Amino acid sequence: MSEIKTFTPGTVANVSCGFDVLGFALDSPGDEMVLRRTVEKTVKITRIDGYDLPKEPLRNVAGVALLAMLKEYRGDAGFEIEIYKKIKPGSGIGSSAASAAGVVVAANKLLGEPFSKTELVRFAMEGERLASGVAHADNIAPAIFGGFTLVRSYAPLDIITLDTPSELFATVIHPQIEVRTADAREILKKNVLLKDAIKQWGNVGGLVAGLMKSDYGLISRSLEDAIVEPIRSILIPAFQEVKLKSKEAGALGGGISGSGPSIFMLSKGEEAAQQVKMAMADVYEKVGIDFDIHLSKVNQTGVKVIAIKENNEILQS
Amino acid sequence: MSEIKTFTPGTVANVSCGFDVLGFALDSPGDEMVLRRTVEKTVKITRIDGYDLPKEPLRNVAGVALLAMLKEYRGDAGFEIEIYKKIKPGSGIGSSAASAAGVVVAANKLLGEPFSKTELVRFAMEGERLASGVAHADNIAPAIFGGFTLVRSYAPLDIITLDTPSELFATVIHPQIEVRTADAREILKKNVLLKDAIKQWGNVGGLVAGLMKSDYGLISRSLEDAIVEPIRSILIPAFQEVKLKSKEAGALGGGISGSGPSIFMLSKGEEAAQQVKMAMADVYEKVGIDFDIHLSKVNQTGVKVIAIKENNEILQS
Repeated sequence: MSEIKTFTPGTVANVSCGFDVLGFALDSPGDEMVLRRTVEKTVKITRIDGYDLPKEPLRNVAGVALLAMLKEYRGDAGFEIEIYKKIKPGSGIGSSAASAAGVVVAANKLLGEPFSKTELVRFAMEGERLASGVAHADNIAPAIFGGFTLVRSYAPLDIITLDTPSELFATVIHPQIEVRTADAREILKKNVLLKDAIKQWGNVGGLVAGLMKSDYGLISRSLEDAIVEPIRSILIPAFQEVKLKSKEAGALGGGISGSGPSIFMLSKGEEAAQQVKMAMADVYEKVGIDFDIHLSKVNQTGVKVIAIKENNEILQS
Repeated sequence: MSEIKTFTPGTVANVSCGFDVLGFALDSPGDEMVLRRTVEKTVKITRIDGYDLPKEPLRNVAGVALLAMLKEYRGDAGFEIEIYKKIKPGSGIGSSAASAAGVVVAANKLLGEPFSKTELVRFAMEGERLASGVAHADNIAPAIFGGFTLVRSYAPLDIITLDTPSELFATVIHPQIEVRTADAREILKKNVLLKDAIKQWGNVGGLVAGLMKSDYGLISRSLEDAIVEPIRSILIPAFQEVKLKSKEAGALGGGISGSGPSIFMLSKGEEAAQQVKMAMADVYEKVGIDFDIHLSKVNQTGVKVIAIKENNEILQS
């Protein structure tokens, strides 16, 4: 094959207590991408639809991720990338991760899968480094593996896939304000109280156990963030109100999606998620802030191949 | 029934990264206890075998735990307690927790089980408060529930039972030095680095996932404590050497048991655990420190009833 079209899901990172380690994938929104092998041994971004992003490979997260991969590839290869972005950049639901994850999975397929999924995460993290200054993996991992993932460790990189209860739905609201990931990082304190940290890892243990046991009550009780949310939520208008109304409407719980400004909520079943969606929307309508809102099942598969085209001339190159 | 004899397992708390939240139970050593209903509505400790401990109920962890329970019992009841201690007090494998857990489970049975297991944990915690100044639950919970337990939260008390892989064996070595729980607490810093805390909750998530998946490799990789062990291990002679030799002998990993001075290691299979036992013993033999050493399967059941005796006279009281 010499041309592949993929769908890459949006993702929620920093899942409540699981700051920097837990993420999950959404069925929608997601980006599409076409990757084409070329005779010329270079990386070119020929088209970006949806949002105005740089086409120079070294200034584009997909370009940087693909180049990081080709650096370790034993052989020569060239590619053309077309990106059809549907995840709004800066929204906090893994827009840059989708570009980076999509391109490395697609290129790996076109090259005969020389790399493992964990290696692909490592390459895609270089895209995150470009986007936010930090090569974090908690959006990349669920975008590539699907479902809920745990980044247990960065050195060495150790990605753990968790079970995802079948009735888990996510509602994500994106208020139209900008929070830069770099700013959201700077606001955090370098030190935390040991007693808060203990609370946090008790909840991380509870959340992981809840996911593995499909225990929705335990998931709900564990969705508490004692450390990051109290600080970062200040940057998001009406955050507490959204959270309160969502829980009243039946949400299991939630928090800031990524570094914000999006807020995510998890619910058991689509009907509950619909109620939560209305409650969240209602808050921002009253406050008078424009927003996008998404309701989606938790995605179980990660990057998906939509179409493959063979082209002998390039295969022979 | 009016008399009951129970076995209560020793326990390992502060399981590596799971400081203050994760614990597991041992098949041995464990304490035995006889609890007898009396016509007199008081609590009496009539016998303590094995170690020299106070018999006044308010100065004895079993007495305090039972009194905490009777305070919430709707009715009058009196008991006599005989304690046959085999877990050495101050060894770091849940000696006080065994006394406290054993007595409340036994009394609950004799009273017709008015209380839930989580309520029993709450009563037994009062024994821990007497023993160490802090009402912690991470020894009590596995002593009562068996297997691995997570104390997700203290307020409200939320105990989560985790799956225990069937081939998991523990080796615990107790060097004959004293580390008081209170001292071990004082040495800890009130603040920790956020980046260390993130590492820690990544590992807690990994350890819980590893237990739920029976993934011994993941359990092994997750048994890392970035926060407490580097500080507390200074109080334990040859700690690093014991850990290193144990891992070389095939241990999955381990750390300080409770607040020390015991050191625990987990292994896959009894044969590996035997090798680890020899390696641990060898270190203290060379250093010239006396020690006890235990090899045990991870206990899956918690407090166990050994015998029940009926006595009509007291049942009618």
